[in-house]
Amino acid sequence: MLAWHHELAVQQPPAYPSAMPDNQLHLGLVGAGRIGRVHAEHLCRRIPEVRLAAVADVNESVAMACAQEFGIPEWSADARKVLDNPEVQAVLICSPTDTHSQWIEAAAAQGKHIFCEKPLDFDLGRIDLSLRAVKEAGVILQTGFNRRFDPNFARVRQAVADGEIGTPHQIHIISRDPAPPPLEYIAKSGGIFMDMTIHDFDMARFLAGAEVEEVYATGSARVEAAIGKAGDLDTAEVLLKFANGIVATIENCRQAAYGYDQRVEVFGSGGGILIDNDYPNTARVQGKSAIYRDLPLNFFMQRYIESYLVEMRAFLDAVRSRRPSPVSGHDGRMAVVIAHAARRSWAENRPVRLSEVG
Amino acid sequence: MLAWHHELAVQQPPAYPSAMPDNQLHLGLVGAGRIGRVHAEHLCRRIPEVRLAAVADVNESVAMACAQEFGIPEWSADARKVLDNPEVQAVLICSPTDTHSQWIEAAAAQGKHIFCEKPLDFDLGRIDLSLRAVKEAGVILQTGFNRRFDPNFARVRQAVADGEIGTPHQIHIISRDPAPPPLEYIAKSGGIFMDMTIHDFDMARFLAGAEVEEVYATGSARVEAAIGKAGDLDTAEVLLKFANGIVATIENCRQAAYGYDQRVEVFGSGGGILIDNDYPNTARVQGKSAIYRDLPLNFFMQRYIESYLVEMRAFLDAVRSRRPSPVSGHDGRMAVVIAHAARRSWAENRPVRLSEVG
Amino acid sequence: MLAWHHELAVQQPPAYPSAMPDNQLHLGLVGAGRIGRVHAEHLCRRIPEVRLAAVADVNESVAMACAQEFGIPEWSADARKVLDNPEVQAVLICSPTDTHSQWIEAAAAQGKHIFCEKPLDFDLGRIDLSLRAVKEAGVILQTGFNRRFDPNFARVRQAVADGEIGTPHQIHIISRDPAPPPLEYIAKSGGIFMDMTIHDFDMARFLAGAEVEEVYATGSARVEAAIGKAGDLDTAEVLLKFANGIVATIENCRQAAYGYDQRVEVFGSGGGILIDNDYPNTARVQGKSAIYRDLPLNFFMQRYIESYLVEMRAFLDAVRSRRPSPVSGHDGRMAVVIAHAARRSWAENRPVRLSEVG
Amino acid sequence: MLAWHHELAVQQPPAYPSAMPDNQLHLGLVGAGRIGRVHAEHLCRRIPEVRLAAVADVNESVAMACAQEFGIPEWSADARKVLDNPEVQAVLICSPTDTHSQWIEAAAAQGKHIFCEKPLDFDLGRIDLSLRAVKEAGVILQTGFNRRFDPNFARVRQAVADGEIGTPHQIHIISRDPAPPPLEYIAKSGGIFMDMTIHDFDMARFLAGAEVEEVYATGSARVEAAIGKAGDLDTAEVLLKFANGIVATIENCRQAAYGYDQRVEVFGSGGGILIDNDYPNTARVQGKSAIYRDLPLNFFMQRYIESYLVEMRAFLDAVRSRRPSPVSGHDGRMAVVIAHAARRSWAENRPVRLSEVG
Repeated sequence: MLAWHHELAVQQPPAYPSAMPDNQLHLGLVGAGRIGRVHAEHLCRRIPEVRLAAVADVNESVAMACAQEFGIPEWSADARKVLDNPEVQAVLICSPTDTHSQWIEAAAAQGKHIFCEKPLDFDLGRIDLSLRAVKEAGVILQTGFNRRFDPNFARVRQAVADGEIGTPHQIHIISRDPAPPPLEYIAKSGGIFMDMTIHDFDMARFLAGAEVEEVYATGSARVEAAIGKAGDLDTAEVLLKFANGIVATIENCRQAAYGYDQRVEVFGSGGGILIDNDYPNTARVQGKSAIYRDLPLNFFMQRYIESYLVEMRAFLDAVRSRRPSPVSGHDGRMAVVIAHAARRSWAENRPVRLSEVG
Repeated sequence: MLAWHHELAVQQPPAYPSAMPDNQLHLGLVGAGRIGRVHAEHLCRRIPEVRLAAVADVNESVAMACAQEFGIPEWSADARKVLDNPEVQAVLICSPTDTHSQWIEAAAAQGKHIFCEKPLDFDLGRIDLSLRAVKEAGVILQTGFNRRFDPNFARVRQAVADGEIGTPHQIHIISRDPAPPPLEYIAKSGGIFMDMTIHDFDMARFLAGAEVEEVYATGSARVEAAIGKAGDLDTAEVLLKFANGIVATIENCRQAAYGYDQRVEVFGSGGGILIDNDYPNTARVQGKSAIYRDLPLNFFMQRYIESYLVEMRAFLDAVRSRRPSPVSGHDGRMAVVIAHAARRSWAENRPVRLSEVG
Repeated sequence: MLAWHHELAVQQPPAYPSAMPDNQLHLGLVGAGRIGRVHAEHLCRRIPEVRLAAVADVNESVAMACAQEFGIPEWSADARKVLDNPEVQAVLICSPTDTHSQWIEAAAAQGKHIFCEKPLDFDLGRIDLSLRAVKEAGVILQTGFNRRFDPNFARVRQAVADGEIGTPHQIHIISRDPAPPPLEYIAKSGGIFMDMTIHDFDMARFLAGAEVEEVYATGSARVEAAIGKAGDLDTAEVLLKFANGIVATIENCRQAAYGYDQRVEVFGSGGGILIDNDYPNTARVQGKSAIYRDLPLNFFMQRYIESYLVEMRAFLDAVRSRRPSPVSGHDGRMAVVIAHAARRSWAENRPVRLSEVG
Repeated sequence: MLAWHHELAVQQPPAYPSAMPDNQLHLGLVGAGRIGRVHAEHLCRRIPEVRLAAVADVNESVAMACAQEFGIPEWSADARKVLDNPEVQAVLICSPTDTHSQWIEAAAAQGKHIFCEKPLDFDLGRIDLSLRAVKEAGVILQTGFNRRFDPNFARVRQAVADGEIGTPHQIHIISRDPAPPPLEYIAKSGGIFMDMTIHDFDMARFLAGAEVEEVYATGSARVEAAIGKAGDLDTAEVLLKFANGIVATIENCRQAAYGYDQRVEVFGSGGGILIDNDYPNTARVQGKSAIYRDLPLNFFMQRYIESYLVEMRAFLDAVRSRRPSPVSGHDGRMAVVIAHAARRSWAENRPVRLSEVG
């Protein structure tokens, strides 16, 4: 392997800067479940110029295991240990939703920048208190809508932003899971609109570049009757009207036989853009009875793993440059507002204006 | 993000085992150029259960920079420092081709397992001496044909191995670079067959599961006249006849206007399988004058980056389990033999049997 | 070209039977505009076992030109000449929409089978009178929803009918024209739901295999302000709820920059099926700045030309076998009912049940 | 269906002119087998401005059946009846290959223009006599290489001719049949190069826009041992070197499990272009174990049916305008020359220059 490849490979990923011990950013992690560990791994192994200094989880053995695996020097069962750590400049809140507001406010009170998983909270009043605390503290808050950083969705947004397809008229989002979660999960999830469609609400806003004014939602429990008995639905269709006249239609289902189904199409005055699912390979088999390819990547940890890394880099860039985060607290709030409106629209079978909800 | 996702995401990548300090494998790196640094990064950040203990490069500042970036404790301008390090159990040889044989033999003499970049050597006599040394030492030698570990090519091989397309009849390989290397590189490259097509020779053998018996090669300098004046060609077509009757056709070019072009198709009695290039996203734009998508990933560091990680894991698995490497020294040798035969075929414009060459 | 090809080409299209003068079916054509001429050409040149015996058009020179071009022995400015012709066993009504009911009733009174272009009428009362006349006369009535016979849509329906995708949950239809019609056309069209979406209403019913219960429609004039001033819309989104729980979403636009956009996707418990547009060729160009293909077939006469032939064969099969037509008068009526409901939903911005309309 | 569609549908196929009895071109057909009947149907039903005046077939009942089906006024068992018919201005020679030369010369002697199926003859001496007769008579001769008129291949040629992909470097042709013909057919076929690859030889010349200088061919009987015993091969790979430096590789097989496989790719200095097979529909099924679509169109009568119509129109245009045919007698001859060279190359396993053969 000779030297010329260095010059030629101009599209190479940005080289990792060597360690900068003096001004190295220190972070703390609250919640070491699945998504918390993804962020820990990325911070410790893929983003070497920062340092994950402390981790907390209500289950101390989980916090300890995470610390040992990734070489995090401090761990605790108490999130306040992380938040009070003077070395920590920014925190990642990956604990259960009903604790988000509490830790956002505590972190803001300590002057620490905040990355918080979605949804910010189920309760709009709590969200508003949190956002006020963030604003008063002058810290950065980024909401964990990772899909904005997926290369496919990002390419669609780029097309809209660049005018590549003219003025957008219609957005269509398909978002289906490979299998429904257990009923215990459903019971605490806040309902399909708050738990699953919330990603699509954010995506629609991201792509439309405007605010939603009215929501019409329908759906039912077609996958599992027990989900319906629990007061939730597993198959939903939502129509969003934006202030700039764009209309988005969303199709959700908790179960797609072929796996994780995550697609979007935007149609505009100058053309359209659509994305496909991601696949484990590009192979096409020409068989005796069909032309086929393998199923798409099965679930979010496969499809979106890269987006979690990119969103974390975006958060760190915002913190270091003191510029606004690309996914603000307002973004986190609006998705929750739309989810409430969708729920009411479904319950009352009528279009609901966002002003009715919050 | 609640707990059920843990259970559901069954296709998740294998969890990293926690550090095993007692039986942790220690490696050394010889050559810290571009590809050496890729392996160093993977060993230090993506494969935490092993330890890269030492690095050498004839340019000591390059060795030192690599050591500092990835936290390698020892560095040197002298490869023997790595090879003689008693802590080092396996070495990666990423130095210029004309030094490969020397370091293979030295490593074997120390009883160290060896990963060596391709080609093993230009000279078959030197390769044979190296392979004998490896055999006598009883160490594992893996040749760096990373493309076997690319998910697309691996899927094609799987289809062949599983009988998914019946008995293979024909293989077609397209392999084109985005731009030709500088003339100084060409001069030391061993020629297009040894430098570029050698990957395709290995791929053809990998997919055919058989040995080549005869080669017919043609081509010329169509991209740059200077390459022709230097005695090389930049556009080549090669036909390989395998012992099991399969015929492979290869198309090479040093310059494809649309970027890196790496595709293969295998046709068999029960069907066929073909792969496409990898793209940065799946977006399809429906524009005013065409339906289009972005260009494919531009060059090998983008297209094959994952395969370098997988090949390293395969090497480590072989070392730890004391099982044969999936890309043996024989594999490394045969690709060189075919390259010599192709060169002669091109020069004499006649089919050349491998037995004429080596 | 030797003989074996005869035997091998088992999938060949059905051979044309030689002429059967004694029992040859005789047809008459009312309306020799664009679509009438398409049917005339198919009957005279592609379906030689039947005979087009007479043609009428209010513009006698149009009727004469059609007769001369296709060798139709009789022509007239008076549709009654065709309907009263004792030789004529079945008529094709391709005249303007506001005359459909009149000619359906007249044909039924003469005991002639009827193929009528869509929509049957704008007025539901007129449609009901027509359908009663057809029923009392015991003749066959087929409505001209040609898209059901397009090979792409037919394949989707087959997948649903065969259970290939399990129980259908969601249908998504994209239907966009390459350019809006002139304002004079808009004024007489009955509005976008009656003129354009009516095809999609029928397609949704065809694919769902059930009746619509409720409609929610929205949209506006985004392409041409003048269309909005004329009381119509050019961009629409419609949501249909079926009796079996399926929900269909429809996206319409009078102008797609890339041409005619006709796609559908059905999602079910066992998987999904989606179709793409038809293209003039399969060529993919790998260019310097993008990978691209030519625009899709531009409008309905290109995309659906084959479906007009197949629908005519289906009508003739029904007539000859005295079996029900595959697109009944009820089908024609229901699409109009849904169009009225959609219009009301749009005007009142609320879901409208079909029972409110008809 | 109102009037505006007339104006909008600008891409509509050319309207059929009304009959022009005075200067209507009259044609005769020699050979009413499968391909002869295809041409008869096109002339009688799809190209109404010409007249098929007479048909001959050595089997008179075949000639009569063809005449009755398509309304051809005269039929005979004697080709000379067609050739001597003073009304006939141009003839279509669709009889067995070994009679082609005889009827070409007879038609030329009568001053009639000639369309002749491929191959012109197996014997180059006979071809040369025929071409001389054609030249001396000053009539037009078109060889039946219909694939040039297929929209996919035509698009590729257009890209080359327009410089859309720069200077062509490499051509790759895949041509595989769904099933081998019977052994009796093989025995009379002239061998795979003369019978099957001949289409690809013409396609390579068509796309390259240059003459072949040297051929290297290999292959064997892998599908059916009996084909090998009969002295033929069923799987072949051919490499063609063109005078302008382009190299074409061809892959043939008499049996593809997935049906008729007809693809081509051209790579040039400015990019590349490739075509896919044609499919019966665009539907993609997302199933439980794979993403799949239906098999491609099965054989030449499905895939190329449109191209037969277009080639006939091209012949008629040439005749009417007295301009050279787009597929000349020279084109017909060169494909036979290349087939002979390929056969010799295969037999002797060496590159063969065309100058050695003819």
